[in-house]
Amino acid sequence: MAYELYYWPEIPGRGEFVRLALEEGGAEYIDVARIPGGMARMMALLGSDTAVNRPPFAPPFLKDGPVVVAQTAAILMYLGPRLGLVPADEAGRLWTHQVCLTVADLVAETHDTHHPISADLYYADQKDEARRRARHFRTDRLPHFLGWFDTVLARNPAGPAHLSGDMLTTADLALFHVVSGLAYAFPRAMGRHLAAVPRVAALHAAVAARPRLQAYLASDRHLPFTEDGIFRHYPELDG
Amino acid sequence: MAYELYYWPEIPGRGEFVRLALEEGGAEYIDVARIPGGMARMMALLGSDTAVNRPPFAPPFLKDGPVVVAQTAAILMYLGPRLGLVPADEAGRLWTHQVCLTVADLVAETHDTHHPISADLYYADQKDEARRRARHFRTDRLPHFLGWFDTVLARNPAGPAHLSGDMLTTADLALFHVVSGLAYAFPRAMGRHLAAVPRVAALHAAVAARPRLQAYLASDRHLPFTEDGIFRHYPELDG
Repeated sequence: MAYELYYWPEIPGRGEFVRLALEEGGAEYIDVARIPGGMARMMALLGSDTAVNRPPFAPPFLKDGPVVVAQTAAILMYLGPRLGLVPADEAGRLWTHQVCLTVADLVAETHDTHHPISADLYYADQKDEARRRARHFRTDRLPHFLGWFDTVLARNPAGPAHLSGDMLTTADLALFHVVSGLAYAFPRAMGRHLAAVPRVAALHAAVAARPRLQAYLASDRHLPFTEDGIFRHYPELDG
Repeated sequence: MAYELYYWPEIPGRGEFVRLALEEGGAEYIDVARIPGGMARMMALLGSDTAVNRPPFAPPFLKDGPVVVAQTAAILMYLGPRLGLVPADEAGRLWTHQVCLTVADLVAETHDTHHPISADLYYADQKDEARRRARHFRTDRLPHFLGWFDTVLARNPAGPAHLSGDMLTTADLALFHVVSGLAYAFPRAMGRHLAAVPRVAALHAAVAARPRLQAYLASDRHLPFTEDGIFRHYPELDG
């Protein structure tokens, strides 16, 4: 049975981390909210207004037969062994999950560069605060996160090609996507920072060159970054 | 061998989620950074400046012999089965972890009410932005999160005493702590909101009454909330 991914239909967003794992893992899946009637099906499973016993707090969530899993990093943890995208040992799986959780933290901080006051307000209503937050993000947090990923790659006993063990994992795919998003949102800052983290840049290029992902990224299953998503290019926030 | 918890020594912070699990689970542990020389031991394991192969990005982290686990929710996931604080079935464990991850999201949003621009700046340097963010948090996000936890309790087929199955889990302990912290930080807002989520309030009271936790909370192993931590009582942010 095909996996069912539920996520907002118009942005790559956090759903993209799940899509990348499903695509690279060669899984059959339905991107439910993007098919006719799918949004209604998603809303019927979501939050406090449904009869689901274990309702997701927010998209993305994955349905695998009777199992419903929410929280991006937990979905990746669920899919990892099923798609051959985590090491076999418990320590390696735990480490892969930790790296995915750290990517999730970076994603949340990236989102808040353009929405530092409230996700319920427009960007235009928090532009001054966004400019201030984005400056600290570009200067402090972004290089701090990128430096950590580069250190992890440098320290990997199996070599710097992967974040966890000697194989492609959900952590590599997650880092690929967040770097793509950051390069879209902050081209000037990332141009500078990526030069200081050559292993991160190399991993990003290697993942982008994988045949299944190349096919996916060129397809209409893949959604482009826009100024409605998590990664937004507002030139006034870059620098 | 005793577990080693590594966390900043002067605040309950995210370390408290781990302490509560260790205490309720009756585990032997050392709160490393609070013993002489412990801060140096913590810094030697942390981030990009060490020789550790899988360095934690940030505290808290747990050392269990050779295993080092970071990310609060991942630590709880690691400890859960070892301390008898998760259900035995895979679906129940995954659900418990999802709830813990949602608590972690709430904690991050709570932190940003007083630090909406940068954690590297003082509160005084972002007070105006904090007031604005806190207002949206109190009005929108806080009741949204609390309502979800209450729904989860209401929908639990095993009854509303627990978030996952028919037993006390790391998810219940995590909700207990975040509710304690929020009640400290936002006494007025929480007074209002808790009345609307009676199951959450009842769970909080039931966890607080557990003998091991009562002993812990009265001991000097437990640190009080202060205005240096994640949960800060600034009256101007409450309402």
